[in-house]
Amino acid sequence: MPTIVVEVMPKAELLDPQGKAVAGALARLGKTEFSGVRIGKRFELTVDGEITDAVRADVEKIADEILSNSVIEDVVAITYPEAE
Amino acid sequence: MPTIVVEVMPKAELLDPQGKAVAGALARLGKTEFSGVRIGKRFELTVDGEITDAVRADVEKIADEILSNSVIEDVVAITYPEAE
Repeated sequence: MPTIVVEVMPKAELLDPQGKAVAGALARLGKTEFSGVRIGKRFELTVDGEITDAVRADVEKIADEILSNSVIEDVVAITYPEAE
Repeated sequence: MPTIVVEVMPKAELLDPQGKAVAGALARLGKTEFSGVRIGKRFELTVDGEITDAVRADVEKIADEILSNSVIEDVVAITYPEAE
């Protein structure tokens, strides 16, 4: 069954405390080549049957309204499986 | 500054309660074309300077040891920016 990937990140201008914590851990481990870390979410939606235009429209609506909070997050990518 | 994306998902055989909750919400909203939802994490690591082989090796190690818990998660993708 085809799987669609929706990727959501916190808005760039927002503080990302979790990301800062990971960046701090990397620096303490001597991995100083990284200047920043940001953490978001990755959704895999498995579709029953074909990915039609209607499904694509639904996914975009769901991504904006359910999978992300448009006040603090951006949908940065929606990836459809290559047509087999 | 170049950004490397690391994507981590819960292992397929594990229960994903958050994913189940979202799938349930989609069904209640009448979006019945989706048979499953799984939720993972997406990390953006900003690199100071060039992405050398040493940086790539570091990212792979960090992805396995810090950004994911190998007992319950898999690193499903590490994406480097196209060389400009």
